[in-house]
Amino acid sequence: MNEITIRSLAKELNLSIGTVSKALRDSFEISDETKKKVFDLAKKHNYIPNPYASSLRRKKSNTIGVVIPEVADSFFSHAIKGIELVAQQKGYHVLIYLTYESLLKEEAIIKDFTSGRVDGVLMSISSETNNSVHIHDLQSKGIPLVFFDRVCEEMHTAKIVTDDFESGYKATKHLIDCGCKNIMLLSISNSLSISNRRLEGYEKALADHGRKSCSSNIIHCGNDDKENYAIIREALNSTGRPDGLIATVEKLITPVYEVVHHLHLSVPRQLKIIGFSNLPSASILDPSLTTISQPAFEMGQTAAAVLFGALAKNIHQLNNEDIVLPSLLIPRRSTQVGL
Amino acid sequence: MNEITIRSLAKELNLSIGTVSKALRDSFEISDETKKKVFDLAKKHNYIPNPYASSLRRKKSNTIGVVIPEVADSFFSHAIKGIELVAQQKGYHVLIYLTYESLLKEEAIIKDFTSGRVDGVLMSISSETNNSVHIHDLQSKGIPLVFFDRVCEEMHTAKIVTDDFESGYKATKHLIDCGCKNIMLLSISNSLSISNRRLEGYEKALADHGRKSCSSNIIHCGNDDKENYAIIREALNSTGRPDGLIATVEKLITPVYEVVHHLHLSVPRQLKIIGFSNLPSASILDPSLTTISQPAFEMGQTAAAVLFGALAKNIHQLNNEDIVLPSLLIPRRSTQVGL
Repeated sequence: MNEITIRSLAKELNLSIGTVSKALRDSFEISDETKKKVFDLAKKHNYIPNPYASSLRRKKSNTIGVVIPEVADSFFSHAIKGIELVAQQKGYHVLIYLTYESLLKEEAIIKDFTSGRVDGVLMSISSETNNSVHIHDLQSKGIPLVFFDRVCEEMHTAKIVTDDFESGYKATKHLIDCGCKNIMLLSISNSLSISNRRLEGYEKALADHGRKSCSSNIIHCGNDDKENYAIIREALNSTGRPDGLIATVEKLITPVYEVVHHLHLSVPRQLKIIGFSNLPSASILDPSLTTISQPAFEMGQTAAAVLFGALAKNIHQLNNEDIVLPSLLIPRRSTQVGL
Repeated sequence: MNEITIRSLAKELNLSIGTVSKALRDSFEISDETKKKVFDLAKKHNYIPNPYASSLRRKKSNTIGVVIPEVADSFFSHAIKGIELVAQQKGYHVLIYLTYESLLKEEAIIKDFTSGRVDGVLMSISSETNNSVHIHDLQSKGIPLVFFDRVCEEMHTAKIVTDDFESGYKATKHLIDCGCKNIMLLSISNSLSISNRRLEGYEKALADHGRKSCSSNIIHCGNDDKENYAIIREALNSTGRPDGLIATVEKLITPVYEVVHHLHLSVPRQLKIIGFSNLPSASILDPSLTTISQPAFEMGQTAAAVLFGALAKNIHQLNNEDIVLPSLLIPRRSTQVGL
């Protein structure tokens, strides 16, 4: 019997050598049907791929990369805990990379990954990320990718998200129910899908309750703490001052409270506040803060479980699916009625 | 002229081949005097080490590893920002590894480093770390190491610390000056040098003001939030309740405030509180918290600058030095007199 090689398998199946090679590597470029044909024939001939070449091709780092915008946000610190728990069970190292909300930095990190440093990637995109060219590079290298929280909606892969539209709706309805007539929303980005979903929920809740959404009530902040303070101070010091405020990002909570203290606004009497946050200190603020709390730990756990599932099956491109975990509204003193 | 090799250099200098080889690699095992002899002779003969062997020895990853206990602490998130700023200027990637206060995890991370994944390491040890065997492994592989904040005092390398003794003293003296008679100190470790230095400062301040240090006033908490809440509740609900409290770790601040609220203790009237913390929200807590704030960003920057300095000069073992950056006491309402 002749020696069985990729070449002889290809000849027998009437396929190109490249197709057989990719099929044996379980490449996403090859259909399941073709893969089955190749695997069946390889099995019949007891074909074992050259182990040296195979190890070169599939060198495992036993490491996953986690790309996030920052660690100062309690959502991310909780999510990382969930990721680490799953990774530890699987014997994987977790590398954390920070983009600091910079697209340039995100691109450099992804480029580093394509050199084979990690087996898979969990990612929450930066607020500057308005295209996905660099992320496609990752996929074309066959490195599996799962998004969590801040996702590229147009990309074909698994995405672990929270119910951002419903949360925006719920936050707004809560303020309406508490008697607010003029509700302001603070955001940090108009490209991030989570920001847009929260805003859409806000607008829908206003519409459902016969309120008009007014563009001057939608305030865009940035990444600079001092600038954000100035923007918020101006918004809360105007003649048409709001009586309800939604901070859609945790880092805006401290400047909001600082402005409120400096302007001697009485919360919740003159202004009711709700914040998207997982801060453990929400309950000990002055006054304690009503929050929309994301299931951060569970989102991290789920994202990691989905990624390790793909790695175990040698799947390089995950199915396009959204896994939605619900957020929770926790009412506290900052929106209490009758104070 | 014969070809110049390590062997011929060794013969001419009457040294072993290993010694010359190590000297040419600038190994810490070789004295400066011997290195100078070897370098001078190599220069005289225009000796250039075999570049292939040299590249194997000194393969650059352009990456540094940062090992820290957690990211939920604002000290670490600020320190990482300082590190990233310097790394970016130098064109290096920063990998963040979390130990979650586990010695086992710390050992696994260090083991991973010795395979050549990083060019250098910045490290703040876990609260469980009571020996430095694993860290010596790193040094013996010639990977330069700089400690910041939580250091192994017995190890020979650069350490970037804050004035923990003085900070403990300053916090205690502040409470004494505010009229406290019975001051309790909360800690999370009795092996970490920073905890011990802060405790020593506390004891010295008490002694200098004619107070006795009482062991029942030194409370050891752990890593579990619920357990910490129970420990603090018991401490603040006793008959000999303190009138002053020092939280030497940021993560104890939330449970302290929760207990205070649940027991309806009036702060600062019945209990004055000071916390070691870089939390931006310290100013918006109920009541705003007097803090000892470490120069976290600057400590990260300095640690990174020292490490990159060593990498640039190909130094594998740094000089044993402590670089001390002072902390700041920021008085707020939680220690105010006359309220």
